[in-house]
Amino acid sequence: MSELLDPLEGLIRALTRLPGVGPRSAQRIAYHLARAQAAEVRQLGESIASLPDTLRRCAACGHLAAAERCVICEDPRRDQSVICVVEQSDNLAAIERAGVYRGLYHVLGGAISPLRQVGPGDLSIRELFERVEAGEVHELILATNPTVEGEATALYIARQASELPLRVTRPATGLPVGGELDYVDKSTLARALEGRRTLDDD
Amino acid sequence: MSELLDPLEGLIRALTRLPGVGPRSAQRIAYHLARAQAAEVRQLGESIASLPDTLRRCAACGHLAAAERCVICEDPRRDQSVICVVEQSDNLAAIERAGVYRGLYHVLGGAISPLRQVGPGDLSIRELFERVEAGEVHELILATNPTVEGEATALYIARQASELPLRVTRPATGLPVGGELDYVDKSTLARALEGRRTLDDD
Repeated sequence: MSELLDPLEGLIRALTRLPGVGPRSAQRIAYHLARAQAAEVRQLGESIASLPDTLRRCAACGHLAAAERCVICEDPRRDQSVICVVEQSDNLAAIERAGVYRGLYHVLGGAISPLRQVGPGDLSIRELFERVEAGEVHELILATNPTVEGEATALYIARQASELPLRVTRPATGLPVGGELDYVDKSTLARALEGRRTLDDD
Repeated sequence: MSELLDPLEGLIRALTRLPGVGPRSAQRIAYHLARAQAAEVRQLGESIASLPDTLRRCAACGHLAAAERCVICEDPRRDQSVICVVEQSDNLAAIERAGVYRGLYHVLGGAISPLRQVGPGDLSIRELFERVEAGEVHELILATNPTVEGEATALYIARQASELPLRVTRPATGLPVGGELDYVDKSTLARALEGRRTLDDD
């Protein structure tokens, strides 16, 4: 089999390593590219190949940037008094999509995970506190993922921040909007019940 | 939004054009690539960018090939007396995966489709008959897709071949193995009933 698909085999294998791309979709993509317009294929390939050279991290927040600072840090309309702390740039993008947050961000570059040998020193936690100390920040929203690693990271940062004149918050955990109770996992359900609010609450 | 994701926006848009990749998966892939090892990302990008230059069509059957002729046409163990006619190289790959066919192939490059302005002259049908006339072919299996276009293409080729001393067949249409009757569309069910066989049939 592998011998038969010969010319696309290496590409298919590489595509399979992308998130959400199984062997079947890798194959579809590869054959699509084999048939697609040469100019379009070359452009896609080159924009992938050049990523490591064109992408950089924002010097302030660690988000992906094309320049010294990212578009969010450069935007004077953003509220400079709140920093939302996330693990990765894609978490930031998810929050931006929700369209309700107008403050700044800080991208840690991961979460504390003893299993994967990621300690606090491997994340940009020191840089976060440098920003806090330098600036006019009044609130840190710890929006790390609601996983064991994410919780541990949030807890670690919250402890470090406990001495500072700062509000430290974490997004609510609970039922997803539009979800059905039957499909919600039991930890989420337990958290949602623990965190229940009276109906006239804000 | 688009402004905020700035450096990856173009790549995400290009990835969305790939088959089976929606806006969400394009984003996941782009952020994955933004984080992945530079060497790996460059290699993937370059192997895509070089596709138009490295890939060619087998001079005999039209399948993707890295050389003058594809690995199937070059394989002397393949049965030279049967040609399985498919629309595209990925259809060929699907049949190879099934692992039961040991003959040769002919890749048409598409199917007759008046709507998309694809006529018989746009497909490698002439080349197919040149192979038939030149060689020792005893059977043509018309394995174009079971769609309107695929059927029309099969019919067209079957008519052209009707004068030749050749068996012309088409794979059976019917119920998928392991599928449930409830989920089979009515055209397939109708075909399956029409094509029913007595139980002691071959």
